[in-house]
Amino acid sequence: MATPPSLPDRQAVRLRVNQYLEAFFREQLAQAASIGPAYYELWGVTHTLTMAGGKRLRPYLCLLAYHAYGGTDDRTLVAVGAALELLHVGLLIHDDIIDHDTMRYGIDNVSGYYQKYYRREHNLAANAARHYSDSLAMLAGDLLLTSAHTILLDSGLAPAQIMVVQRHLQRALFSVVAGEQFDTDSVLREKTTVDSLRIAELKTATYSMVAPLLCGAELAGASVAERTKLSLFAANLGIAYQLCDDLLGSFGDPSITGKTNQGDLEEGKVTYLLQATLRRCTVSQRTGILKAIGKPLTAHQAEKIRTVMRRCGAVAETEALIDDYHQKALIGLASTHLPATTKQAFRALVVSLLQRQR
Amino acid sequence: MATPPSLPDRQAVRLRVNQYLEAFFREQLAQAASIGPAYYELWGVTHTLTMAGGKRLRPYLCLLAYHAYGGTDDRTLVAVGAALELLHVGLLIHDDIIDHDTMRYGIDNVSGYYQKYYRREHNLAANAARHYSDSLAMLAGDLLLTSAHTILLDSGLAPAQIMVVQRHLQRALFSVVAGEQFDTDSVLREKTTVDSLRIAELKTATYSMVAPLLCGAELAGASVAERTKLSLFAANLGIAYQLCDDLLGSFGDPSITGKTNQGDLEEGKVTYLLQATLRRCTVSQRTGILKAIGKPLTAHQAEKIRTVMRRCGAVAETEALIDDYHQKALIGLASTHLPATTKQAFRALVVSLLQRQR
Repeated sequence: MATPPSLPDRQAVRLRVNQYLEAFFREQLAQAASIGPAYYELWGVTHTLTMAGGKRLRPYLCLLAYHAYGGTDDRTLVAVGAALELLHVGLLIHDDIIDHDTMRYGIDNVSGYYQKYYRREHNLAANAARHYSDSLAMLAGDLLLTSAHTILLDSGLAPAQIMVVQRHLQRALFSVVAGEQFDTDSVLREKTTVDSLRIAELKTATYSMVAPLLCGAELAGASVAERTKLSLFAANLGIAYQLCDDLLGSFGDPSITGKTNQGDLEEGKVTYLLQATLRRCTVSQRTGILKAIGKPLTAHQAEKIRTVMRRCGAVAETEALIDDYHQKALIGLASTHLPATTKQAFRALVVSLLQRQR
Repeated sequence: MATPPSLPDRQAVRLRVNQYLEAFFREQLAQAASIGPAYYELWGVTHTLTMAGGKRLRPYLCLLAYHAYGGTDDRTLVAVGAALELLHVGLLIHDDIIDHDTMRYGIDNVSGYYQKYYRREHNLAANAARHYSDSLAMLAGDLLLTSAHTILLDSGLAPAQIMVVQRHLQRALFSVVAGEQFDTDSVLREKTTVDSLRIAELKTATYSMVAPLLCGAELAGASVAERTKLSLFAANLGIAYQLCDDLLGSFGDPSITGKTNQGDLEEGKVTYLLQATLRRCTVSQRTGILKAIGKPLTAHQAEKIRTVMRRCGAVAETEALIDDYHQKALIGLASTHLPATTKQAFRALVVSLLQRQR
């Protein structure tokens, strides 16, 4: 590659993907309205949630790799970005059901919205309201997960390219489901025996990093050898990204992250951060933490656990591990044949991803 | 169309679709095994369930329409049939979560299997076991619903044909989800105000009849006008089929249907049969039924309700309505330009569908 390709602008990608998604939802909402107001409402809630999450990181990664390998047809790539976002939001909706979360992006998620609805309109008890709202959320997720495949059909992408993207989407889902299963089972296991890094790789790295980057690279015509190197970069970056997410899950500012900072603890989620804490803290702290997590916590209880996490060195250990994966990602990146300026842009992106506040 | 095309053999279609599905699952199981034994098990349970349901009605309808309109490439059509079945089983898995059903095709469904697993292996209380098992079932359904799209990618179908099928699959899902939502909400509404026939159309007719028949017809090159007529046939047949299903849901033989014959009553499902019963029975019978349904019933209670359903004429009314939709379907069929022998074969199929025991 002689001349370094220009790299896409993050805000421009975000805007164009949002426009594409808006057009998709306009169409679906119109069709839903023709069926009935309740269905229009379900699509409306799903639409609101999808547009509330605005980073559009995965589309950006896809376009970044596409440009890096010399792709030039941005217009159709925006559709691929939109597909990646639908997969993402569909997965989040189903993940939130599993985790009993009712908020996402600072607003009610689909379950949260309908829990209020069923309690208000039908005066249902909490358990029944949860079952019905989770049912609707499951259906909303089904719509988005499959729309991720079909939004491509009218994109103007060549059929062969659509099939490339669909393969990546399906490979990613295959991996995410494995990760979700590990994660779900992990809540029930001896916390220290869970391979939390493997879960991060399966559940986050594949669909958030590997699929978008490889999709972009393959559509631009990158060789199999290049894609293999890029996937090393992507997988390691993805694990580092998830470790950051775990830190934000307990130390993030809810007004910035848009989600509670004690949800992971209340769900008893086995993060590397928690495992390092249990390994490093005193026996009595360990007993206290294991007794407290996995159920609703007061703000005071959560803060006490955070203090232990910091003081025993678990936060620092997690940060060091993020650095390790960051370095591994950079080695993968260095092994590619991308131009130096492109590599520099990737490195800058990585830094911004791993120092994010939300 | 001068010479009537030969129509496919139902057993041959079943065998070939099963072979295709077996090959699909072999591949997925091998990949799942490389991730870990738990994931292999999840795919295994999903595989067992998929193969336990053996009618393969939707693939047959698809091939029937394909042949009827002159299609000759059976090999690739088997892949379309497999896709329709994956959609079908994925939808059933999610539907069973909503309805709290744990059996399907006479065996544990995904939720049922994992409820036992979580109680046995982790000694979980019923509620927790249900949440975790429903979570895994949701994930299994996600895998099948999206695989319905991607199983086509390696089918040998031309890309343009794959896209035709994917559009039908997505249109069907869009409608089913609307029907599921109506159905879910119907449990909470005044039973007599629910439009149960509309639910049957959205939830069953579209994906079980309209999508398979139109898919086959479009792939064979049938005109838009023909497809419109065929869809009238399909939609009316689908509603009749669902009404039969409702009768089987209360009057079927569990050893033949593979599911309980009091599940609909226990779930408080608003079927046309139930509505006709509530409209026709005495005030005190009505009060008794409304008080009893929507929760677990003894066999004696269920039998009492069945007796009311029969005696008040609700069963006969439902059977008459099945005949009505049957006739409407035949009018749609008659309006097509299919050869007389093909129409005759379709009519024979309809009779067998509406007189089924399972």
